[in-house]
Amino acid sequence: MSKGKLYGVGLGPGDPDLMTVRAHRLISNARVIAYPKLPGADSFARSIAKDAIDEGAQEIVIEVPMTTERAPAQVAYDRGAEHIKDALEAGDDVVCLCEGDPFFYGSFMYLFARLSTDFEVEVVPGVSSVMACAARAGLPLAARNERLTVLPGPLPENELRLRIEGAESVAIMKVGRHLPKIRGVIEALGYSKEAIYVERASLAEEKICPLADAPETAPYFSMILLTKGADPWL
Amino acid sequence: MSKGKLYGVGLGPGDPDLMTVRAHRLISNARVIAYPKLPGADSFARSIAKDAIDEGAQEIVIEVPMTTERAPAQVAYDRGAEHIKDALEAGDDVVCLCEGDPFFYGSFMYLFARLSTDFEVEVVPGVSSVMACAARAGLPLAARNERLTVLPGPLPENELRLRIEGAESVAIMKVGRHLPKIRGVIEALGYSKEAIYVERASLAEEKICPLADAPETAPYFSMILLTKGADPWL
Repeated sequence: MSKGKLYGVGLGPGDPDLMTVRAHRLISNARVIAYPKLPGADSFARSIAKDAIDEGAQEIVIEVPMTTERAPAQVAYDRGAEHIKDALEAGDDVVCLCEGDPFFYGSFMYLFARLSTDFEVEVVPGVSSVMACAARAGLPLAARNERLTVLPGPLPENELRLRIEGAESVAIMKVGRHLPKIRGVIEALGYSKEAIYVERASLAEEKICPLADAPETAPYFSMILLTKGADPWL
Repeated sequence: MSKGKLYGVGLGPGDPDLMTVRAHRLISNARVIAYPKLPGADSFARSIAKDAIDEGAQEIVIEVPMTTERAPAQVAYDRGAEHIKDALEAGDDVVCLCEGDPFFYGSFMYLFARLSTDFEVEVVPGVSSVMACAARAGLPLAARNERLTVLPGPLPENELRLRIEGAESVAIMKVGRHLPKIRGVIEALGYSKEAIYVERASLAEEKICPLADAPETAPYFSMILLTKGADPWL
């Protein structure tokens, strides 16, 4: 019997309409799907894809612990990869649901590292939240010979300052509890007016405002966009 | 009569299956579409969307001259914006087709700058070629607290060297005729083995290889991906 194929499917930023045609078709036809899930919460990835999932599909849930330590998460991916491997060995294709894009801060890369040597894997790219936030904010990211720098919010303050200072357009991802630190850095650099805060782009709860008006606490899925030297909304 | 709405619709990297569900639906229902085109060539944007375009749709072609000077292109976008304006004033929605993502090195931002003050505009984000190239190359772009820097190939040699040196993951876009210069910089920095060359990702003519094996001449739609410190395919 031939082995199944693993698909890492990007779902885009959250609005199901921003899934690709290919993602939608693969999910609709899938007999086995897999997705990550935090303890005590619904899977965000599954919630994006839910209308496309067949009722009879088998679901492999990869419960990823809430921690910044790597080891417990690695154990969770080891276990998830084992379940996926069983399905693939049995000849079933497995469609793994990934928020945003699978290879851009996506946990799919941990499954890819564990399974791509022994099984055929196809990565289906998705709309990144960087592009979705810019679209929703009406803020062009980069034109002509401009550079774009993507920074994760958890970076240390000094590193953030250095990188924002040397950049042209900047997208700061995974803002969450790092918002006060990031806001401090941007204010100190004098870019408060240009910076835009975007929370849950493309979803009903979406929030977009100048960074100065951002809430005190931000969810993990929030972003700050900064394009220098121009009024951000012109 | 109410004015029409302008949609800037990202089409993704080239494979029509990588259009979003929303892009596909908007294009299928459009009575008026607009798209850029180089002289003497078919429009790449239109070629991606062609199977979704209604036979009776009116087509506004924005012929953009082949030049690195800005003024002639700006005149072309002035003219294109006028045509689109006429349709919007007449109450028709206009769906503007954009390769990749509209706000990421996309020409739609020039139309947005000309029309968003007077008309309602919605930007529909698309799969960026950065994510598509990484997916096709099997090369995770960024994990955890890693940074990603996007650089346009036309940047001067010194600037490229400085930016690649200070970066973690790098995507160099618009490689084209700048390939020898970029290759020289990457070789001098000692990253030849890690750098991957990707041409026309997701299309039938796609080419993916280590930078050392890249052809002598590259098309505009080619990219170099460099993730430091790890074997690129592990």
